[in-house]
Parts: sequence; C-alpha cells; structure tokens
Amino acid sequence: MDCIFCKIIAGEIPSYKIYEDDKVVAFFDILPISHGHTIIASKKHTRDIEGLSEEEISAMAIVIKKIGKAIMEGLAVKGYSVFLDNKSAANQHISHTHFHLVPRAEGDGLERWPQSGYEEGEAEHYLKKIKAKL
Amino acid sequence: MDCIFCKIIAGEIPSYKIYEDDKVVAFFDILPISHGHTIIASKKHTRDIEGLSEEEISAMAIVIKKIGKAIMEGLAVKGYSVFLDNKSAANQHISHTHFHLVPRAEGDGLERWPQSGYEEGEAEHYLKKIKAKL
Repeated sequence: MDCIFCKIIAGEIPSYKIYEDDKVVAFFDILPISHGHTIIASKKHTRDIEGLSEEEISAMAIVIKKIGKAIMEGLAVKGYSVFLDNKSAANQHISHTHFHLVPRAEGDGLERWPQSGYEEGEAEHYLKKIKAKL
Repeated sequence: MDCIFCKIIAGEIPSYKIYEDDKVVAFFDILPISHGHTIIASKKHTRDIEGLSEEEISAMAIVIKKIGKAIMEGLAVKGYSVFLDNKSAANQHISHTHFHLVPRAEGDGLERWPQSGYEEGEAEHYLKKIKAKL
C-alpha cells in the first residue's frame, strides 16, 4: 500500500507519534500551521469519511477531545481548531482520512474563509435537496 | 440562556433545520461559506469540547458523516470540509460547541492556512510536553 500515513502507522516511516489505540493514531504534522499541529488519522486505510463506520469516526472524535486537552495543558495554549478535508474536491492532500488539530492563539492571523448569503428562496431550495437524501 | 444556538434548538429563533436527534442538531449557517454550509451543534449548551462527554462528541461525529453524505448526494458536490474552532483563542464566534460542514468544489479558492517547519529538536520538545499530559 503506497500510503504515507499507512507507512507511519506501520512504523515504516518515522513520526512524532503522540497517541495510538486500536482504531486511531495521532502524530505531528511535520509542516505545522502552528507548533504542536497534530494529525489524527484512522488506522484503517480509507480515503474518506464514507469509508469509516460510525464507531470508527466516533473513535476519532474522542481522540480529538483527548489530544486537544493534552495540547492545551502541555503547550499552555488557550484553544485549538480542528479541520478535515474530505475528498480531493475539498483539497484533501493525503488520501487517508485524517483530522488536523491546530493549536491557536488570539491574534495568530489564521482567518476563516469568507462568507456570503442566500438569495430569497435559495436556502429552502438547498435544504429540500439535502433532506431528501437523509 | 442568552445563546443564539440554544434559541435555535428550542425553536425560539427560526432556522433552516436539516437534522435533529437527542444529542445533536444541524441547521444552515445563514452566512454560508458555500451553499449548504451547515452547522452541527450539540444540543447540550457547552462552550467547548471540554464540556462534552465522549458519547456527546461521538454523536456529533456520526452526524457529520450522515449530513456530509446527504449534502454530497443532494447538492451533487464532490467533497466537503469540516472545521471547529474551540474556545475564543481559536476565534470561536458562537459560544456553543459546533462543527461547520462546508461543501467544496475543485478550484473554489478556499485555501489552507500557511504551514511552516520545526527547528532541530523543537518537535521532540513539544511532543514531550504534550505526552506528559496524556
């Protein structure tokens, strides 16, 4: 399997590993957005969330909570952001499902994406399409 | 409780609600980054992830998976990003824990935050501090 995260999980590529359980592994991003920026990956190789069971994505969420607390305490940071890009349309760089956990500080200059609005009736239109698939 | 998301959950403020179960509610962000941008909030009022049980954050992750699939199918989008800003240091706007789910498309211009690197020994230094708190 030519997947860099699978190789990290297997120990074939060295990493700064923080945490590991039967479903999830966490290690530093070596090109961090901020110091302590951590990747939280499923142990199972799957490109995207669609390949994870509810139990597997839950396990990742629990690890976000654990690691986030340890990072805040260990690095004395006051908050963090979490993100995940799902599929190549979302600019997912590594094809193995993972969350990013990025330590944050007031005034760190990391900006949200710009927001817009809806025209009249537009939100209802999209809502109906989504609810039809639930 | 003067919390806009609690008022949405209670139905005191109208919203474009997509989904609801005993722990989680999902509704449109009215200032969307892209059409169908959805907020996935805990029903329990808590500012941050630290106020959620493992079961509660797991329930949110399961809803991300559900809503993400429905958005991709319903709006014919090929991917999505998920983010959560935890605490005011992370620029959390509304003090009630929530994920954002943002439909994505290739070339949508939504860029990642800039990355840097570690000096020699620096990653080990931070790793040790975090692991001490796990």
